Amino acid sequence: MLPEAQRDSLEVVLVSPRNPLNIGAAARAMANFGLRRLAVVAPFEPTWREARSAVGSLELLVNAVESATLAEAVADCTLVVGTGTLVRRKPEQPVVPLPELAPLVARELAREGRVALVFGSEKHGLTREDLSYCHLLVEIPTEPQQPSMNLGQAVAVCLYELAGRAVAMPEPTPATPVPSITSAAPSGRLDLLAGVIEEAMRAAGYSPRAMQPANRHDLRLLLRRLSLSAHDNRRILGLFRRILWRLNRGQGSGGKSG
Amino acid sequence: MLPEAQRDSLEVVLVSPRNPLNIGAAARAMANFGLRRLAVVAPFEPTWREARSAVGSLELLVNAVESATLAEAVADCTLVVGTGTLVRRKPEQPVVPLPELAPLVARELAREGRVALVFGSEKHGLTREDLSYCHLLVEIPTEPQQPSMNLGQAVAVCLYELAGRAVAMPEPTPATPVPSITSAAPSGRLDLLAGVIEEAMRAAGYSPRAMQPANRHDLRLLLRRLSLSAHDNRRILGLFRRILWRLNRGQGSGGKSG
Repeated sequence: MLPEAQRDSLEVVLVSPRNPLNIGAAARAMANFGLRRLAVVAPFEPTWREARSAVGSLELLVNAVESATLAEAVADCTLVVGTGTLVRRKPEQPVVPLPELAPLVARELAREGRVALVFGSEKHGLTREDLSYCHLLVEIPTEPQQPSMNLGQAVAVCLYELAGRAVAMPEPTPATPVPSITSAAPSGRLDLLAGVIEEAMRAAGYSPRAMQPANRHDLRLLLRRLSLSAHDNRRILGLFRRILWRLNRGQGSGGKSG
Repeated sequence: MLPEAQRDSLEVVLVSPRNPLNIGAAARAMANFGLRRLAVVAPFEPTWREARSAVGSLELLVNAVESATLAEAVADCTLVVGTGTLVRRKPEQPVVPLPELAPLVARELAREGRVALVFGSEKHGLTREDLSYCHLLVEIPTEPQQPSMNLGQAVAVCLYELAGRAVAMPEPTPATPVPSITSAAPSGRLDLLAGVIEEAMRAAGYSPRAMQPANRHDLRLLLRRLSLSAHDNRRILGLFRRILWRLNRGQGSGGKSG
């Protein structure tokens, strides 16, 4: 099990779950592996009510945080990991097999980061938009002919690897150093930066209106790929705020262009 | 995933499952991790019928083997592993944490043994009698306050470790050699031997009638603890058959006692 101090720093996020039994099963797996922080994004309301009011419903389920968007749910997380089968989708982030994710999560938790593990709805998984909030994607090694796991079982397998197994087994000697793939800038700060950059793009007339959604998507991915530290994030934000201020004051006020 | 040749050699056994959804979930996890051989012992008939006839029921579930006893279900297995939380029970066999079970199972499969992973009913787990057919017990590392896992999730976690993860990750370098804990004598052969020894005990007037069930239980455990090879098993069987024959011929016929 994770040390007490880290148990609130590994969060499970269910996006639009449809089946109350699956929500209950996810919560039960969390309790089995000593986790407490569950967030639910845009749940189907009757489902959500039913799951929480079920007899024997776990405290962590009753206390789960509900939010309208994934951006909100992971705003304070420094490492956001998307789950799901990638059969039909070409991933835009690094894909890490579940066994190799454990040391990355352990390291992030050890340096007091917050990690979110995001599961999509039973029917459709995570959308492309959802995935754009993820630093990386995890893949459970399953059979190509039957890759898609039941939601409750997928949560159990992931938490076993990340919270149960990780601490039951001694850490393997780090023969190959773990690459640095994440930074301490939380997801919400990246979104703030993305918003200012986008405003600057608009103010500068950077892209035609029809291209703006695609640019927004690419920008979100880019900022995560860069592994910005909180410090980097602040500096770039300052720069773009300055640019934006200047753009809005009108182009005629004479900058020293070089 | 396991190599094709080993996929029929790792069997999942559900003893008296009560919930059709759990049976379906166990079957699904097997399919996810590329396994095919499911056995069900003494199922509650309506449950069993419902699980098999469910829409989208997997082929491996429809083809599952039903038996009246666990002894029958594991008769051809050379390594029988019991699952379940051991909170209230003092185990009579070695208990292996799930992460450490993987190399033992891999080795047994590599030498063409057959491995059974046995799950008890949702309500009571495995009985003491069930456990006496197990060479060892596996423990999933869970939270002491919430140790008991949902059946479908427990199956998924075990199969992830034994069939999914094991092959996705390179085998760790064997710094400490894996102890030899099992033999090639299949469970059914051990039972045959136990039967002959018990007959010999009875014929020899070894124990009063009231002690016979306890002796039978201990004998079953003892034979598994000994890690008998198929060859050992045959030789001991021969010896006890001879003893039994002699006992039944009557004691008066003059043996060379030493």
